[in-house]
Amino acid sequence: MTSRRRVVRVVEGVSGARPDTLTVEEPLEIRVGGKPLTITMRTPGHDFDLAAGFLVGEGVSRSSKDIHSIRYCAGATADGSNTYNVLDVVLADGVAPPDASLERNFYTTSSCGLCGKASLDAVRTTATWPVDGDDLVISPSTVAELPDKLRTAQLVFDRTGGLHAAGLFSAEGELLCLREDVGRHNAVDKVVGWAAREGKLPLSGTVLMVSGRASFELVQKAVMAGIPLLAAVSAPSSLAVDLAAEMGLTLVGFLRGTSMNVYSRPDRLGLS
Amino acid sequence: MTSRRRVVRVVEGVSGARPDTLTVEEPLEIRVGGKPLTITMRTPGHDFDLAAGFLVGEGVSRSSKDIHSIRYCAGATADGSNTYNVLDVVLADGVAPPDASLERNFYTTSSCGLCGKASLDAVRTTATWPVDGDDLVISPSTVAELPDKLRTAQLVFDRTGGLHAAGLFSAEGELLCLREDVGRHNAVDKVVGWAAREGKLPLSGTVLMVSGRASFELVQKAVMAGIPLLAAVSAPSSLAVDLAAEMGLTLVGFLRGTSMNVYSRPDRLGLS
Repeated sequence: MTSRRRVVRVVEGVSGARPDTLTVEEPLEIRVGGKPLTITMRTPGHDFDLAAGFLVGEGVSRSSKDIHSIRYCAGATADGSNTYNVLDVVLADGVAPPDASLERNFYTTSSCGLCGKASLDAVRTTATWPVDGDDLVISPSTVAELPDKLRTAQLVFDRTGGLHAAGLFSAEGELLCLREDVGRHNAVDKVVGWAAREGKLPLSGTVLMVSGRASFELVQKAVMAGIPLLAAVSAPSSLAVDLAAEMGLTLVGFLRGTSMNVYSRPDRLGLS
Repeated sequence: MTSRRRVVRVVEGVSGARPDTLTVEEPLEIRVGGKPLTITMRTPGHDFDLAAGFLVGEGVSRSSKDIHSIRYCAGATADGSNTYNVLDVVLADGVAPPDASLERNFYTTSSCGLCGKASLDAVRTTATWPVDGDDLVISPSTVAELPDKLRTAQLVFDRTGGLHAAGLFSAEGELLCLREDVGRHNAVDKVVGWAAREGKLPLSGTVLMVSGRASFELVQKAVMAGIPLLAAVSAPSSLAVDLAAEMGLTLVGFLRGTSMNVYSRPDRLGLS
């Protein structure tokens, strides 16, 4: 997940060359039944989770049984070695492949969300497990401990400073799964995909903690996986708050030290 | 660019409701000649710059003359008011519209970059103004002042904490253009689009400063606009460094206080 490069480091006008550790960013093309579906720039590692989680977010698959197999396709460099940058997902019999009309949304989702009103509708209609009725109860003090737990678990983050993290926690604040990626949405897909492949969907009663902002897309991915609480270190957007309120997800932002903002469904934290 | 919502604020176990200011995030569909090209989640404002800059990044347009007109299409809410979330760009006579084979790249670019080897090739072949030979010279101390200048200019950032910024600076460290957006790549598109519409392309001798990470995509957008130096507050990815080295762009990362890392072409800062 990391790579070494020469860098000239300048501190207070004094410069010197040294090796530096960088986060690896490479393209991954996800195909379904041989047909290209999306390309995302990701940090290699947990690619099968990434693909499985992406398909959960899009409403294509709901459990490990919906996916027959995932394999790397040949994608070769000049010297013939596999680049491991193309994946093919074969869906199980009876699972509808994404159709042509969905395809456009897939491309846009991999950017930063679906298209406004239409996609709010789409999430509402395709959400497999409504999170609105999830009876998760968690104390604000447990939530406040999550960023430190996430950071402690992020070994690679300390080495490059360039990775986003997503962590899935139990209501007691126990870390269930941690994934990192150069892209925030990929880290979340990897967590959801891990759960899907482990047969753990829906993720009722769990908390998803992300290292950056809470965008519309991350709220959507949480809802599609049945996660009732999304907590972020930084700010949410207006559309993220609107979707969270509409779907009944608890959205926590600016989670730093002992303070946080709760934007929707504060009742799960015993607040009103 | 901001919106108010009710939030429950918790500090050291004490909670209280108050209004909070959020960054607005809304979808924008960009059409060319009436044909949908891409959808991006963006902060409304400077939408024409965003569309113009996106087309520069894709190699479709190179100057203000390549675009005949940009206008908002009707995109109405239930009560009939325009949502201003769909734009149509009419290209000038003789300017080739993006063809079907490019279309896929457009979708992926709006996510986080083009596809690996193929796109490295694509940038090399379509780059209109090689930055390799740009004779920009700038002192490390001038570069070190850019983050503060950018932050000072970011009024909205102070209000929501949720916006990425991109600032274009002269070699003397003078701010030429500042744009903000919920998406890092959109902020850069808005800066480049501003320059394109003002007839300032190529942006030889300038510096682009971004508030977050330096991804592959941002290096590509800088190169396509003819910008010879990209500086970022946070880490670059491996692919960003590779592309910068290949194209002859000076890439600066971890620009904080008086320190920075120079990943490629340090000669423009008088370093070796």
